[in-house]
Formats: sequence, structure tokens, C-alpha cells
Amino acid sequence: MSGQTVVVLGGDGIGPEVTDAALAVLRRVAGDVDFDERLVGVSAIRADGTALSAATLAACKRADAVLVGALGDPGFPPGSDPDPGEALLTLRSELGVTVNLRPIAARSTLAELGPIRASHVQDVDFLIVRELSGGLYRGGRHARDARAALDECVYTREQVERAARVAFGAARTRVTSVDKANVLETSRLWREVVTEVAREFPEIELEHMLVDNAAMQLLLDARRFDVLLTENLFGDVLSDEASIYCGSIGMLPSASLGTDGSPGLFEPAHGSAPDIAGLGVANPVGAILSGAMLLRHGLDRTAAADAVERAVAAAIDAGTRTRDLQGTATTGEFTAAVLEAL
Amino acid sequence: MSGQTVVVLGGDGIGPEVTDAALAVLRRVAGDVDFDERLVGVSAIRADGTALSAATLAACKRADAVLVGALGDPGFPPGSDPDPGEALLTLRSELGVTVNLRPIAARSTLAELGPIRASHVQDVDFLIVRELSGGLYRGGRHARDARAALDECVYTREQVERAARVAFGAARTRVTSVDKANVLETSRLWREVVTEVAREFPEIELEHMLVDNAAMQLLLDARRFDVLLTENLFGDVLSDEASIYCGSIGMLPSASLGTDGSPGLFEPAHGSAPDIAGLGVANPVGAILSGAMLLRHGLDRTAAADAVERAVAAAIDAGTRTRDLQGTATTGEFTAAVLEAL
Ligand SMILES: CC(C)[C@H](C(=O)O)[C@@H](O)C(=O)O
Ligand SMILES: CC(C)[C@H](C(=O)O)[C@@H](O)C(=O)O
Repeated sequence: MSGQTVVVLGGDGIGPEVTDAALAVLRRVAGDVDFDERLVGVSAIRADGTALSAATLAACKRADAVLVGALGDPGFPPGSDPDPGEALLTLRSELGVTVNLRPIAARSTLAELGPIRASHVQDVDFLIVRELSGGLYRGGRHARDARAALDECVYTREQVERAARVAFGAARTRVTSVDKANVLETSRLWREVVTEVAREFPEIELEHMLVDNAAMQLLLDARRFDVLLTENLFGDVLSDEASIYCGSIGMLPSASLGTDGSPGLFEPAHGSAPDIAGLGVANPVGAILSGAMLLRHGLDRTAAADAVERAVAAAIDAGTRTRDLQGTATTGEFTAAVLEAL
Repeated sequence: MSGQTVVVLGGDGIGPEVTDAALAVLRRVAGDVDFDERLVGVSAIRADGTALSAATLAACKRADAVLVGALGDPGFPPGSDPDPGEALLTLRSELGVTVNLRPIAARSTLAELGPIRASHVQDVDFLIVRELSGGLYRGGRHARDARAALDECVYTREQVERAARVAFGAARTRVTSVDKANVLETSRLWREVVTEVAREFPEIELEHMLVDNAAMQLLLDARRFDVLLTENLFGDVLSDEASIYCGSIGMLPSASLGTDGSPGLFEPAHGSAPDIAGLGVANPVGAILSGAMLLRHGLDRTAAADAVERAVAAAIDAGTRTRDLQGTATTGEFTAAVLEAL
């Protein structure tokens, strides 16, 4: 044993199917890691009455990294109590992860799928850096009475600085910072702080873009983006939009990192997809590539991360495709192809 | 004279060029209307020191409808004082317009342009109903100190009801209500109120969709939409994204309506495009079609509105295209083609 521990939370819907796939791959390349599988979401509610038990949360905090499948169930609509979706937000805030990385990399062998012309998909390759702790999510007040409702959108200098540093650190040529500075005070603060941080990185260009324009530029000219840096909710929306370049939302991994050595949270960008849960046809790529990000950012195992990414690319390029990519491979067959390529 | 008055505010950048085009068309089909052209934005700042003078605002309030070109200038970045962009927000709140209609209709003769495959563009035809008075825009508190910034997102029951009634009234088959109910209290209120209003329209189906998913579904399957109803900022972002189906953002009209007989505000969805201002190459379609919406919703002249819409379609289908549509027609040439078709 390496002494490294990863908590694996399959969660709801297709979550356990895709984390099983990721786990099979992780065990192959990092067999000395201790993988601690636990319940979260609906299965945890059934077992403990709560979507995220104190024991599970404590295990996550002690771990070197946490891998999550998906959360959310049609039997528990938004706002219900207990709410499996809330467990994810609680995990984020309790682990203190503040910056979310969502790489958007088109694979040319998938460029013929999907609504975007292949000529516009080729060579799209950028990173979305989403601030994950502030904005309209937690932090601000959320209130409701019979007549009206209120959500506070709050940003501190520190939150913006932290996300901006990650973005500039990851950029090769340019950071595109997305805000709504013509309407929001938080965006004006955002723009000011990002501009300050940019001075520490003179070799990286900074451009500001309004979020409405960004939603359009993501389609007109996605190749212009190197790192797209934005606040919490804009990042949520723009990353789902950008998934269009990857063939399916099922392809997208993500890494949520803290900045003080706390364990990172690694999860595919897709949801629990109750319509196909249990059928064994879910695309495990998002989860497997989240596993690769976990190896890289959570366990400092670059070579293993590279190997997993190469194996996934090889399996896709060889034509192994799940249903969302217009193929017939099952989750298990795709995973076997990745293990084979390893 | 009909006694009907329309205030025309060209504004900044390409604004005056496109309102000139719209005005030429409006004069042709509604020559008995009194068109009152006034300054707004940078030109008004130069003349009066303010982007929207009290006299101009008063004229707008007295008018039957207001046509706006575009606002915003690179010399006055967001947050500057005076800020030409603020004039638009002031106009919206002072006129009391609360619901913004943005039709998204693909023209099959333009389907080969742009990043989306023609097969996915064909037959896209839906209406975005954007609540325009609440949310993160005006209404809530916006504050800033050295350390942090805050924007309040506020919705009242009444605001949601009003927008929902417009959406259901315009729907043929289905309203897709877009929110972020898994995170926001305002979205939970939104969902509740929209569900209540839906009961008044039993023949119209209601579906709820999270905004991140909507940003993706807009690309995967835009034909599913009939009316997309959403709050202020989500509508801002999703309508710019949806512009992709129309060949260019220059094609999109919009109408902002009050519900108490106050004058409506009609404006193309595009901005002031300083890079091409003064060159006479701007696409006037958004402005001309905003003129058609003005005829329909502002002056109750349905036949004239229909005629303008048919003439614009004819000019496009005949191949007259401005630069943004990969053509060579000038603003004047395109406008002449519309007048010719009338
Ligand atoms: C489930 C939900 C709260 C979450 C978010 O909005 O952050 C999800 O959409 C995501 O992108 O991870
Ligand atoms: C100029 C700006 C304030 C405005 C908005 O955000 O509403 C614009 O983007 C729009 O869509 O009309």
C-alpha cells in the first residue's frame, strides 16, 4: 500500500456504473492505492436518512482525493428534503474546493457526430476554469417568503484571485475572462481583480468577454479559447454548452481543487441520467478521465494519468463507442477496450 | 397623421445605421406615423452630458413605441460614468417593460452558413420569452467595498406570473421553463409560479429544464422548443447562444413589452459593433424586423408587420446578404432590396 486513499462515491443513476468503470481502470494503474467505496445520494438516504452521512464526509476529508459518479434522482426534485443534489454542494463546500477545471478537447474521430460541422470541431482544445465556491451558490443568503425570493451573488477579492491564479497558471497563451460587467458589481470586481492578477503573468494575454457574447463565441470560434476563466454559474452553463465539441456530455471530466492541500473532488460533468440507469450503456469516459485528473492532481501520478488518457483516446479512435456516441458498446465493453489499450 | 408617435433612438456604433434602414422601411409601410428621432448614448453624452436626457425619456414615455439601435462604446467601458449602456437599462425600467420577446427562426436559405450543420438548422423556429425587469438586473441591491461585491437576484411572484402568462399565451404546444432550481431560491419560486400559471392553459404542455442543460439542448435539439421561458440573465445568455441558428446575431429582433399599456421598446439583439461602425456594412435585418415587431405589438398594424417580414424574407432568399452573412451587400443595398420587395 502506498498510504494514499481515494474515497469513491458512485451516487445516483448511472453514477455507480461509471465509477465502477473508472475504478477498474484506476486499480490497473494505481493498484497500491486504497479505494474506499461509500454511499451517497439516494442509496445513502435509504441507508442512513441522509444523502451524505457524517462518517462519509469525514472519510472524504481524510482522503487524498474523492471520486464522485453522479447525484440526483427524479424521486427527489430540486428543493426536496433530503435532496441528493445538495450532497454535491455540501461536499464541495466541506472539502473547501474552490476551483473547477473542465477541459474541452475535441477528438477528431468524433468530429462527424453532433450538431457542429466537423470543420468547426477540429482542433478545439481549451480549459474552462470555473470558480466553484462563490457567486450565486453558497456563501450568499438565499431567502423566500410568500411573495418573493432572493439569492445573493457574492464574490470576495480572494475568491477571484484564487481562480485567476489557477487560470493564468494553466494558460499557454491567453486567458479569456468571462463576466457581465455591464450589469453586475460582482463582475466589475471580478474584472478588476483578474486584471491585477494578469500583471503577474506578463507572457499571457488577458481578454474580457461578456457572458452573452461568450455563449455565442463558443460556437462561432471555439478555437480562439485557450483558458476560459469565469464565475460559478456562468461556468456551469458555458461548460455544458461547450460539451457539444466532445461528442457527448458523457465525455467530460472535471476536477475541483482546493488550494490548501485539502482533497480534490473529481467528477464527470454529466448527471445521473435516470433514463438509462442500470442498463449498462452509460458512457464511462467522463468518469475514467476524471480518474486520470485524480491521478494527476490528487495523487501526483502524472505517468499513470497520461497512460489512462492515452488508453481512452486509443479506445475511442479504434471505434469503440457507447450509445450516446451513436455506437453499440456497453459500459463494460468500452472499459475493457481501455484496459486492453493500457 | 395617424396620431401615433414612435421615438427612434439610433444610439452608438452601428445603431444609427440600422435604425436608418428600419426607418426607411417603416416610413414606406406606415408613412402616417410620426417618427421622432433623438439622441441617446455617446452622442447624447456629447450633446447633454448624459446618455439619456430627461426630455428624451419624457418623449419615450409619451410615445406609442420606441425603436432603439444599439448602445455602448469602447471609450466608455462598463461601469464608467456616464455609461451609455446604462441608458438602455434605464429605458427599460422607466418605460416599465417587463417581458422581452426574442423569436429565433432559421431561414433555410442561410442554413449553410455558420457552425451548425444545415440538417440541425432546418425548421428551428421558437420564441424566447425573457423576463426583463427582475433577477440580477435592477430591483435588487448591488454593492461593493474594497474586499467584496454583492448583487441581489430578486423575483416576485408577480414578475414571474406576468412573464409566464405571455409565454403561455404565445405558445402553440409547449412552454419550456428554464431555471436553476437545484441551486436558487428564485428558481424554486419561478418553477412554482410557472406551474400555477400553466393550469390556466391546459392545452399547453409545460416542461422544466435546468439552465445548464438548456444551454446544451439548444444545440442538440433546438427543434424541441416552441416557447422557451426564462429569467432575465439566463434569457440574455441563451438568446445570444440561439442566435447561431439565424446566420448572424445581426438578424435578431426583439420586443420588450409592458403590461399596462406603456410603450414597448423594440431593438435588435446585436450590440453597437464599433469595429464596423460607420462603414455602411452592418446587417439591418435585426433592426428592420424589430420595426416589424413594433408595427405588430406597438402600433397594432398586423398587415404592415406581415408585409415587412415577408419582404425581409424575400430579400434574403434572393441572395442579398451583408458581410456578416458572407455577402457583399451594404446596409443600403440590403434595405433597397427590402423596399423593392415591399
Ligand atoms: C448539480 C449541480 C448543483 C451542479 C452545479 O450547478 O454546479 C452541476 O450542474 C455541475 O455542473 O456540477
Ligand atoms: C446591454 C446589456 C445590458 C443587455 C442585457 O444584458 O440585457 C444586452 O446584452 C441585451 O441582451 O439586451
